[in-house]
Amino acid sequence: MSTVRLVEESEASPRVRAVFEDIKATKKVNRVSNIWRALATHPEHLELSWSRLKAIMKPGKVDLLTKEIIALAVSATNGCNYCINSHTVAVQKLGLDDEALGEVLAVVGLFNSMNKLADAYQIEPDILPEAARK
Amino acid sequence: MSTVRLVEESEASPRVRAVFEDIKATKKVNRVSNIWRALATHPEHLELSWSRLKAIMKPGKVDLLTKEIIALAVSATNGCNYCINSHTVAVQKLGLDDEALGEVLAVVGLFNSMNKLADAYQIEPDILPEAARK
Amino acid sequence: MSTVRLVEESEASPRVRAVFEDIKATKKVNRVSNIWRALATHPEHLELSWSRLKAIMKPGKVDLLTKEIIALAVSATNGCNYCINSHTVAVQKLGLDDEALGEVLAVVGLFNSMNKLADAYQIEPDILPEAARK
Amino acid sequence: MSTVRLVEESEASPRVRAVFEDIKATKKVNRVSNIWRALATHPEHLELSWSRLKAIMKPGKVDLLTKEIIALAVSATNGCNYCINSHTVAVQKLGLDDEALGEVLAVVGLFNSMNKLADAYQIEPDILPEAARK
Amino acid sequence: MSTVRLVEESEASPRVRAVFEDIKATKKVNRVSNIWRALATHPEHLELSWSRLKAIMKPGKVDLLTKEIIALAVSATNGCNYCINSHTVAVQKLGLDDEALGEVLAVVGLFNSMNKLADAYQIEPDILPEAARK
Amino acid sequence: MSTVRLVEESEASPRVRAVFEDIKATKKVNRVSNIWRALATHPEHLELSWSRLKAIMKPGKVDLLTKEIIALAVSATNGCNYCINSHTVAVQKLGLDDEALGEVLAVVGLFNSMNKLADAYQIEPDILPEAARK
Repeated sequence: MSTVRLVEESEASPRVRAVFEDIKATKKVNRVSNIWRALATHPEHLELSWSRLKAIMKPGKVDLLTKEIIALAVSATNGCNYCINSHTVAVQKLGLDDEALGEVLAVVGLFNSMNKLADAYQIEPDILPEAARK
Repeated sequence: MSTVRLVEESEASPRVRAVFEDIKATKKVNRVSNIWRALATHPEHLELSWSRLKAIMKPGKVDLLTKEIIALAVSATNGCNYCINSHTVAVQKLGLDDEALGEVLAVVGLFNSMNKLADAYQIEPDILPEAARK
Repeated sequence: MSTVRLVEESEASPRVRAVFEDIKATKKVNRVSNIWRALATHPEHLELSWSRLKAIMKPGKVDLLTKEIIALAVSATNGCNYCINSHTVAVQKLGLDDEALGEVLAVVGLFNSMNKLADAYQIEPDILPEAARK
Repeated sequence: MSTVRLVEESEASPRVRAVFEDIKATKKVNRVSNIWRALATHPEHLELSWSRLKAIMKPGKVDLLTKEIIALAVSATNGCNYCINSHTVAVQKLGLDDEALGEVLAVVGLFNSMNKLADAYQIEPDILPEAARK
Repeated sequence: MSTVRLVEESEASPRVRAVFEDIKATKKVNRVSNIWRALATHPEHLELSWSRLKAIMKPGKVDLLTKEIIALAVSATNGCNYCINSHTVAVQKLGLDDEALGEVLAVVGLFNSMNKLADAYQIEPDILPEAARK
Repeated sequence: MSTVRLVEESEASPRVRAVFEDIKATKKVNRVSNIWRALATHPEHLELSWSRLKAIMKPGKVDLLTKEIIALAVSATNGCNYCINSHTVAVQKLGLDDEALGEVLAVVGLFNSMNKLADAYQIEPDILPEAARK
């Protein structure tokens, strides 16, 4: 159960309602997800969080599916249940089937392991990124 | 400084040498990275780790650049310096410029924040992935 | 479901009972929280954990509300559900309303993001704390 | 060494320069910290990150010292060296001496331990925050 | 609820069935755990994961109980509920009683705290492992 | 560089000196490690931390080498450099050679991967520990 009462769309203040309407129009959905309804208990933080997500998650040099895959990789690494569910749904809607999802998660699993081995042996870098660019 | 003495290519046992040669041939590089030279202190673990990485990091339904981006996202979320350096070099070699790298890391930063907010408010899922598939 | 059977107050050994009574007296509550009942399966660890928490969580140069806010920030960053619930209740009891809670969590979300960006770009320190003290 | 070349103030584009000037004016400092110079490789992300930090880190219902303490608690929990240095300097400048810093970090250490014990024993909540508010 | 439909033993392909049979024979159990049934949605990843686990978790210079204790320590530090449950059952089956489990978890709790204190104060190493070997 | 000035043994207050002497006598070493010298900036926290570590790290139902292995597994999972160095030295002194260290770290790497896969697929427990005890 969430630690604050989720704000209902019907009772939202005009400031919150404006964000809720923009979320529904941008995402082409009929209802506002629970995370935004919780953030709405602090309207300025809701605005900051939504405007940032909207700006970052628009397609740019990196396409939307890749961005959602990154979001899923981060969420799985952090073990955030709400976000794992949400971004798994998102990549499925964007066309990733179970086999491709399996490939994505295999990479996530692999580097969670390699990261800890590199730390555990205190390995020093072979080559620095800046050097690679020249 | 690494916590074990890195195995030199010149002193490697036949078992380790076979893996080192496969690493260099597969990655088309002249030297073996430090992480493999540390893992070589336990030859069976070296074989298991390299064969797994080789199998998972080949292009499949998901392309290699996306896989390296996932590796970077995981490594940044875990704060693994060796791996951040290594995978930043990899995505740069595969053509990601600083602006696209900025987009990738913006998504990483965004969801590290959203993950903690979803946990902090103990938000329950809106919709489950399984439901989305039907 | 907890992985060990929680020790009931009525069946506690004298050693465990003494800690349970001190917890109830110190926190001015009628029952002992589940975490202490689980730790009671190893009485010495229960004593060590409670005496440490009691010593650290008394008001000092830093007041109790700030200490509970730190506890919540740590728990949210770690994604520990039991602790997020427990410390959210604690800060609410100490007077933090939903808007102030929103401010606290906004800071938690912000720096979980900034932390990963600083790591991802491998930024080196601008100034060291020791230098700042002189 | 950072993975991208840090943008120099003298070579910044007008868009980046505007953010750099606002950072210096807001923080009353003579130079822009390395993290902003790295983020400047993606000007839109620089703007989003700075405007968010500026909005969240202004004093509100929660004062600035408490906000910097939260930032330090998060950074220590994540083990982000750059951020630990930066926020330790910040709390020192705001008047926290070594003994008070010790109290803050004692709380950070304590709950990193308690979080893992609560998870390890899979303890279920005693009381939910919502119940506490009624 | 899992994000993919778990593969039933009765409907498994020959490739998946071979792994399932090996899991049951190796672990001397009558049914395949849920984690393997989820991984079976990507048969190659199932094979890679199972063959690696089977190779690493056989007794060697380190005995099986110690290996399961390490698995539990890692799982508790990561806060992975499924794995905490699974490895707690495993150590109990191998003979660890509640008091010994309490000792193990006390060490896990202790060093989650000490790790964060060492990071928070940015302590530099006293002595390096390589030096210790000479 | 540490964020506080490390307390020198020669300038320690009687309260701190007593802890330093106990550390040296208990660990049979000639100098006090840096972590204790940093904690000494808050003498009460130094006492609490040392007395807890001393109590938990004495051999009990679990032997000292296993406890140091757990400490290393936790430190590697958290990526704490100071602690990884320190506990690697400790296990080496207690007789673990490079091959056995490789086995330990293979288990650490394995379950950091399995943990994230179990979370990523949101797997539910097969069997609960309590059930296993009956």
